Amino acid sequence: MTSGTSPVTLGDIQAGLESRLDEVRDRLSQLIVADFGLIVEVNAHLLRMQGKMFRPTLVLLSRDASEGTDPATAVRLAAVVELIHLATLVHDDAVDHSVLRRGMPTINSLFSHQVSVIMGDYLYSRAVIELVRLDDLVPLQVLARVTNEMTVGEMRQLLAVDPLAFTEEDYNLLIRSKTASLVSGACEVGALGAPAGRREAMARFGDRLGRAFQIVDDLLDFTSDATITGKPAGLDLREHKITLPLIHVLPRLSRGERAVVDELFANPDPRGDQVSAVIGIVADRGGLAYARDRAQALLEEAEAELAVLPPSPARETLRASLCYILERRS
Amino acid sequence: MTSGTSPVTLGDIQAGLESRLDEVRDRLSQLIVADFGLIVEVNAHLLRMQGKMFRPTLVLLSRDASEGTDPATAVRLAAVVELIHLATLVHDDAVDHSVLRRGMPTINSLFSHQVSVIMGDYLYSRAVIELVRLDDLVPLQVLARVTNEMTVGEMRQLLAVDPLAFTEEDYNLLIRSKTASLVSGACEVGALGAPAGRREAMARFGDRLGRAFQIVDDLLDFTSDATITGKPAGLDLREHKITLPLIHVLPRLSRGERAVVDELFANPDPRGDQVSAVIGIVADRGGLAYARDRAQALLEEAEAELAVLPPSPARETLRASLCYILERRS
Repeated sequence: MTSGTSPVTLGDIQAGLESRLDEVRDRLSQLIVADFGLIVEVNAHLLRMQGKMFRPTLVLLSRDASEGTDPATAVRLAAVVELIHLATLVHDDAVDHSVLRRGMPTINSLFSHQVSVIMGDYLYSRAVIELVRLDDLVPLQVLARVTNEMTVGEMRQLLAVDPLAFTEEDYNLLIRSKTASLVSGACEVGALGAPAGRREAMARFGDRLGRAFQIVDDLLDFTSDATITGKPAGLDLREHKITLPLIHVLPRLSRGERAVVDELFANPDPRGDQVSAVIGIVADRGGLAYARDRAQALLEEAEAELAVLPPSPARETLRASLCYILERRS
Repeated sequence: MTSGTSPVTLGDIQAGLESRLDEVRDRLSQLIVADFGLIVEVNAHLLRMQGKMFRPTLVLLSRDASEGTDPATAVRLAAVVELIHLATLVHDDAVDHSVLRRGMPTINSLFSHQVSVIMGDYLYSRAVIELVRLDDLVPLQVLARVTNEMTVGEMRQLLAVDPLAFTEEDYNLLIRSKTASLVSGACEVGALGAPAGRREAMARFGDRLGRAFQIVDDLLDFTSDATITGKPAGLDLREHKITLPLIHVLPRLSRGERAVVDELFANPDPRGDQVSAVIGIVADRGGLAYARDRAQALLEEAEAELAVLPPSPARETLRASLCYILERRS
């Protein structure tokens, strides 16, 4: 996996998919349409805070590269995958009491916690209704399993706040269920019509890519530049969330360093200087380099899965998406 | 619809179904099984707080009376319907911040709000997984629609706190989506293998029964005797929830009576004497009698739907269940 001289952007990966991604967006807004005032308002806000459409992009690229699912169905599945992602975000924000998402107020902060819980259920049940309309149990089977895995991931996340108890193995299970399951599902449903070998390869490709994606996300929390990402470094530490860079260095700390970490976790509302000190310790002890190496290794595993696909521009774009994951700054 | 000299109990309705209801309970605990500690704990609590199994009972009776769905599938569908009901209760309690359910601590009070949100999602996605395993899109179609309707009902419930704005029409839409949709779905999935006329009649039967069930529930909140139901009268009023008896009398109140009602709704934490006064006014102005008449009329509509079914003991038990709805005291 080699990136060229200039970094790969999301725009590069989505080049050529624009009109189909527009169809996905249209389909998504049809799927959530409601005739009940409060839901209409929440929907309008959700559509305004639309994200990068990374998962729909993977559905479409996987389809093209595997010669799988027929094109019209792929667009509908891409919309369903994004809808499930959206439902998950709404509930995640409710669980985390998050105030901002993609630089905009969350549903729980703008409406209420109650509205968020109900709205997540609304969105998810609409996704199931659309899957039933597709008249094929296979995508339902994949995405119902994935959705259930994500809920287990959320439970794991709740326990990822005790530095003594949370191991690298726990972290790997967490990122697999929380993030990689839906990314893997996105790649798999794009390849449903393809031979089993391609479908399985795409599911594994998505799993590795999804895990690397989450590791890089967690790394960015340590290295983030607020002027680029819009959020300051160390938010996870501030919320006592334990991720790979810290897990890796914990057994390698001096007694003094460990005390600094313990003080942060003992403080319900850690100060900025505590957060900066722990970030410094994690960097010094090689936690960032280790996490980056793990992400790189997973992306190489993902790349290897592409070998079973026939040569195509879509396959090369999937390859490029691996560089994007590693290089992204926000 | 005439009840005999002695009131119909739930035990009468479930007589002869015991072994199948045991199978439903077994299936239900298999469906929610988990290998993750926290989920195992929550599941154990959920199974301890099991309810009356009223919806599974309707699935089985509807099956028997309509000669519909095959018996083994009916047991599995009955478990799925109860599982969806359970998922809904867990989220409802989280939305309402309820402390007790069926006399036991709710998931949100015993664990946390966060655990409730995630657990509801876990349970619902398990229900979808089981429906996919049944290898038939029709029950999925019915229950996905029902689940979506229930979320709209929950949204309506959020708005049912303004006495000036909430009309009888709003109330009817609320109880239809919040309660009757799943009861109707339970009756419908029991009759899936039956001729269309029977299936449609069972869906309508469940809709009318479900609406009457909710009206009686709301009535019991006015008339409840804490020594029988385990909860004092007027809990809905205390939480500013507006139901049919109050809606009916609102336009019929004297200025003085209206002031008493307005004071209760202006008090964030109504006093016991305020609640008693409003209950007295609603009773005096005929609100309880009106709601009871509405429930009775709906139950008569439900009974009329039974005419298309062949004579059978199950049909007569469905008829008896209508008396149970009207006569129940808890």
